[in-house]
Amino acid sequence: MTTIAFLGPAGTFSEMAALSLGLPETDPLACTSIAEVFEAVERGKAALGVVPIENSIEGSVTATLDALAFDTTLEIQRELVLDIRFSLVAAPGTALADITEVIAHPQAGGQCRRWIDRNLPGRSVIAANSNAEAVQTAVVTPGAAAVGPALAAEIYGAEVLEDGVQDYAGNQTRFVLIGRGIQPPTGHDKTSLALFMKKDKPGALLMILSEFAYADINLTKIQSRPTKRQLGDYMFFVDLEGHVEDPSVRLALDCLRLKLREVKVLGSYPKAV
Amino acid sequence: MTTIAFLGPAGTFSEMAALSLGLPETDPLACTSIAEVFEAVERGKAALGVVPIENSIEGSVTATLDALAFDTTLEIQRELVLDIRFSLVAAPGTALADITEVIAHPQAGGQCRRWIDRNLPGRSVIAANSNAEAVQTAVVTPGAAAVGPALAAEIYGAEVLEDGVQDYAGNQTRFVLIGRGIQPPTGHDKTSLALFMKKDKPGALLMILSEFAYADINLTKIQSRPTKRQLGDYMFFVDLEGHVEDPSVRLALDCLRLKLREVKVLGSYPKAV
Repeated sequence: MTTIAFLGPAGTFSEMAALSLGLPETDPLACTSIAEVFEAVERGKAALGVVPIENSIEGSVTATLDALAFDTTLEIQRELVLDIRFSLVAAPGTALADITEVIAHPQAGGQCRRWIDRNLPGRSVIAANSNAEAVQTAVVTPGAAAVGPALAAEIYGAEVLEDGVQDYAGNQTRFVLIGRGIQPPTGHDKTSLALFMKKDKPGALLMILSEFAYADINLTKIQSRPTKRQLGDYMFFVDLEGHVEDPSVRLALDCLRLKLREVKVLGSYPKAV
Repeated sequence: MTTIAFLGPAGTFSEMAALSLGLPETDPLACTSIAEVFEAVERGKAALGVVPIENSIEGSVTATLDALAFDTTLEIQRELVLDIRFSLVAAPGTALADITEVIAHPQAGGQCRRWIDRNLPGRSVIAANSNAEAVQTAVVTPGAAAVGPALAAEIYGAEVLEDGVQDYAGNQTRFVLIGRGIQPPTGHDKTSLALFMKKDKPGALLMILSEFAYADINLTKIQSRPTKRQLGDYMFFVDLEGHVEDPSVRLALDCLRLKLREVKVLGSYPKAV
């Protein structure tokens, strides 16, 4: 039995990502925050953890990036890309015409606002602390519907009245599976790095990119971020195509280690297809 | 009278940022989304708008970056950095011992969770759609307190029971003032750019950084982002020290315009101190 910690409660998109791994014999462990997911894996309460790292609409999940860069010795084992689809759900037997209020996490409600305005005009939108709480409350409240993941409807005994009520097409979240150690190369890998600069070194980023270009390494993401640990300190998050065991990647990282304050490998793992 | 659109409702940190401008004779216009703030200024319903662009904990506000890059001809007029401080507020005369429930926007509640666990253990935390809604509800609910900005307490007639209940020190949000045209140079300016690549051009970022390095221009932020308009397309958000009218910045941008698909100036404006 493999225990997988995820950002709970039950029925979240994080749990859907954990289920999409298709691992046999897993035991889900709901955590209340991203920090708690990391802690559960570090303390051995779970073998693996699933946390969101980037959403196509909201951008990077800073809590996850910062935990990987500053707070943990765990590494990314795999990435998972999930389409974020919201359903309108309610107690079984409820019709759209019965709905007098919609319960939603503010972010989910915001992403379905135009659909609600068009299909349920004038209904009040009541806030919930999570998508799962929205569904749980709606299912016991006559006349209430919730927007949430289909999985939450299944778990909490609600019925899906309408699927795909989000306003934006192409809403995807990238999750990462965290655990101990670096995965072996598969030939289709990605490596995530946190690069910590020396103080006020002009041209550092140019040098970094030159090293990767010289080694023919393709970068798929780059993002600067103040470290906030020391004034003036800054760092970069970089994703590249390749594995830390590839000779070209190893060469580039060895060169960077000679010049930067720290090169932290956040993981080498198979690219999501 | 200058109408300033902001991300409402009344009493939000966006309104606090608008007030911190210190403009005489302003008329605040609360909007329900970032897109609506841009629209209000574009259609002339407001002369200026205030929107969040980056939070030190949550990261970039993608809705604002995308609106600036893709959807608007408005430019950044100024940046404003605001310390995000939450207060515990309730109806006047309420004591901490009277509190049986805490009302909070889920994000605000999350940022004050440790304080609430320590000082109000066991109290249920009820969700609200905004910080302002949390304060409005708490002030008419016996035994309820809310976490929210001090301004919301003032506006909605609540009393501050405790100030600075957020768990993390140094929580700041950078807001931008949007409007028409580029501000004249002050000598202490910053320029924000959206750089659109030609398709699959390896080494493009290296070339971009070389142009800025050659012109002795210091970059303060760089962030890659898929454009999602066309598959394989990508772009960078760049902040640099200097003004588009500086000869060195002009030279670098002219060179980049020859090589990139598009160089969009999001604004040149005085640096926040």
